[in-house]
Amino acid sequence: MSLTSRHLLGLHGVPKEDIVKILDSAVSFKEVLDRPIKKVPTLQGKTIVNLFFESSTRTRISFELAQRRLSADIVNFAASTSSLSKGETFKDTARNIEAMKIDMVVVRHQSAGAPHFLSRIVDANIINAGDGRHEHPTQALLDIFTLREKFETLEGLHICIVGDILHSRVALSNIYGLKAMGVNVSVCGPATMIPREIEKLGVDVYHHIDDVIPKVDALNVLRIQLERQEGGLFPSLREYHNYFGVTRDRLDRADKPITILHPGPINRDVELSADVADSEHSVILQQVLNGVAVRMAVLYLLSQSKP
Amino acid sequence: MSLTSRHLLGLHGVPKEDIVKILDSAVSFKEVLDRPIKKVPTLQGKTIVNLFFESSTRTRISFELAQRRLSADIVNFAASTSSLSKGETFKDTARNIEAMKIDMVVVRHQSAGAPHFLSRIVDANIINAGDGRHEHPTQALLDIFTLREKFETLEGLHICIVGDILHSRVALSNIYGLKAMGVNVSVCGPATMIPREIEKLGVDVYHHIDDVIPKVDALNVLRIQLERQEGGLFPSLREYHNYFGVTRDRLDRADKPITILHPGPINRDVELSADVADSEHSVILQQVLNGVAVRMAVLYLLSQSKP
Amino acid sequence: MSLTSRHLLGLHGVPKEDIVKILDSAVSFKEVLDRPIKKVPTLQGKTIVNLFFESSTRTRISFELAQRRLSADIVNFAASTSSLSKGETFKDTARNIEAMKIDMVVVRHQSAGAPHFLSRIVDANIINAGDGRHEHPTQALLDIFTLREKFETLEGLHICIVGDILHSRVALSNIYGLKAMGVNVSVCGPATMIPREIEKLGVDVYHHIDDVIPKVDALNVLRIQLERQEGGLFPSLREYHNYFGVTRDRLDRADKPITILHPGPINRDVELSADVADSEHSVILQQVLNGVAVRMAVLYLLSQSKP
Repeated sequence: MSLTSRHLLGLHGVPKEDIVKILDSAVSFKEVLDRPIKKVPTLQGKTIVNLFFESSTRTRISFELAQRRLSADIVNFAASTSSLSKGETFKDTARNIEAMKIDMVVVRHQSAGAPHFLSRIVDANIINAGDGRHEHPTQALLDIFTLREKFETLEGLHICIVGDILHSRVALSNIYGLKAMGVNVSVCGPATMIPREIEKLGVDVYHHIDDVIPKVDALNVLRIQLERQEGGLFPSLREYHNYFGVTRDRLDRADKPITILHPGPINRDVELSADVADSEHSVILQQVLNGVAVRMAVLYLLSQSKP
Repeated sequence: MSLTSRHLLGLHGVPKEDIVKILDSAVSFKEVLDRPIKKVPTLQGKTIVNLFFESSTRTRISFELAQRRLSADIVNFAASTSSLSKGETFKDTARNIEAMKIDMVVVRHQSAGAPHFLSRIVDANIINAGDGRHEHPTQALLDIFTLREKFETLEGLHICIVGDILHSRVALSNIYGLKAMGVNVSVCGPATMIPREIEKLGVDVYHHIDDVIPKVDALNVLRIQLERQEGGLFPSLREYHNYFGVTRDRLDRADKPITILHPGPINRDVELSADVADSEHSVILQQVLNGVAVRMAVLYLLSQSKP
Repeated sequence: MSLTSRHLLGLHGVPKEDIVKILDSAVSFKEVLDRPIKKVPTLQGKTIVNLFFESSTRTRISFELAQRRLSADIVNFAASTSSLSKGETFKDTARNIEAMKIDMVVVRHQSAGAPHFLSRIVDANIINAGDGRHEHPTQALLDIFTLREKFETLEGLHICIVGDILHSRVALSNIYGLKAMGVNVSVCGPATMIPREIEKLGVDVYHHIDDVIPKVDALNVLRIQLERQEGGLFPSLREYHNYFGVTRDRLDRADKPITILHPGPINRDVELSADVADSEHSVILQQVLNGVAVRMAVLYLLSQSKP
């Protein structure tokens, strides 16, 4: 069993069949995580480089756990210790990785397109762990996996993504993946944080959280990047919370329980109130566990592809 | 075989039987360290996260060697690269670890009580690798192991801990552990560095090193934190050395050889003169080796406990 | 099969037979790197510490890949996180490593002689991964391996090392190793960058790149340390490129193709023009792959030596 592409660069253009293969495979790997010995020999003898040009905790740890539980050999490569500080080009770094006969590369980079560039010059399977404002496909896949687990079927659900859509690679990957799975997707945020012409991707746009809450099955609440505040995109955290904060009061006005997702780390009582984050409708911690299973599935399926 | 508690948060309240179990188990693991292949499959398939919010070399390397030699899978997590810099709460970090199905967490934190907090919200076994000025139980266990190796029996020995008792988690854990084992414990240091009411723990207090040397079997000499000097706790390193430095001259005045322990790294010729550190009565390098064996024993015994 | 020495501290004084053993062994390990499972159990249960007091990417990753592919257990130890920042002496660090029963230590240090010092006080096999301006033997061995692969025999070849010979540990190790293998060695660079009396090592000195190009089989082009510029060793990068830059124009004036080596990372269009770096005569990427194979060979052969 393998996927259409040898790489996971984004969810743009990935067919539904591939997404379903990943989700189904992740179901099996999630069972492994419930065993006393959470480990399978699937990638024994394979070498994976984690190439993180942007710092990250959860995503790196989640990938590393997935890799260890598949018995892969891992080499971590962080930007601060890399030759890049000696002025080496990204292309030379890539060629070196290629020359060292690495099997797979997980790359996070501040520039959109870096994983695509890598995939054109190296033989290894490339997995995008976040590139600029572009895509973060494994995050979207774990969100979709968590939703499928909750609702059993995705077809016809309505999911709204709330927050800074403009700067979010999580949002874009979710839109591509959810649309492929037949989900009705909308976005909600301040006008300054919604990309122009986003409707062309087939999503509805809301500027008032109270307008969309009555209509949705789940909200995927994005983390507000506190450092963006200085850019003047919104006046204050308090104001953001007042207009867009997902609170129990707001959710109680809907006539059914609404499932809450968040990619973490949460700014408690900014984009999401603490009681909602900890409520029975939050699937945030399931997302964390599912992230390991989904990444195991992606690594396994890509390793099966022919070069 | 397992311990009373699922966690090793400190030595306060740990019964003598548990300490003996750890020391006895460490004897077996120390034999493993003398083999050409220093590795056993004890923790194969178990995942341990080393969660270090304070930088550390020896303790981290010692734990990591213990973990590798037990065949565990390891994920390292250092504060500087963590989500904490993104403002995530310690509680959210803990819950994420929990969600990722980690088996054991070794935690070092600048705040006293952090390991206890973790143990209340996650299922994993928690091992305290140093919390604030509170406890550092594996250091005390390796000190006690080294003393038992030297003296065969601990009952009735007199051990004095020398230095900045007030700020030392090593001192506190040693006091709890040694007292549980029937050792006669005293402390010696400047008045500004001895906690008030420490006598309530059953230890004698000395302010002159020359008063206590004739009475002891061993001195556990603490590292002076050079950075504390600025706080005015003592006037100069030279003065500290004059009043409390453990030198050959001082030791020669006793009528029997005195065993010297030090948790490292040593400030040579400050708290301990170089010739004493390198003398035949110093067990400082044995402590380093024993640290790996004792940590293997702790990890093994906790892994046997029922959740 | 083992080497004359238990350590690889440099190529000075290493007999030709030992170099040939390493190169021959690397041929076998290079075959392993072409298999789907690039891993052998050679060093299973052995613990290697990578002790890097100078930051490095390629060398560290190359060693780490070699170690993982030999199934060793690895502990990484970087200067910034070490006890050295707490004022511990290098000697105490070494003794601690010794006490922890490490099998092998790969050490990079800014001071010439640090690996030699280590080898005198610890039992582990020591491998020099670069010490000050002194030696970098595994780099030279991979250069020599790559040349032997290209030319089949080394005897009688003429190799010129181009650049800052004075500050280069790569140059010195190459000179020792190439001379031992019967290669005709010359160096070329600005007068300020050639050590006095280097002719005593049996190398010819050139100050004009155009004088030496017609005579050589291969050029080993060193990286220019851009940070040295401030020291006034040469006036500008443009001027360096004009006088010493290896360009297609210059190479075309020779009557045969010249093989180009570079230890990386390349300053494109400074010491080496981009088109030459990417040309069919460049073996720079082969060097990278060969580095892993040569390091596997060195680790394997040293592990076979008797203490």
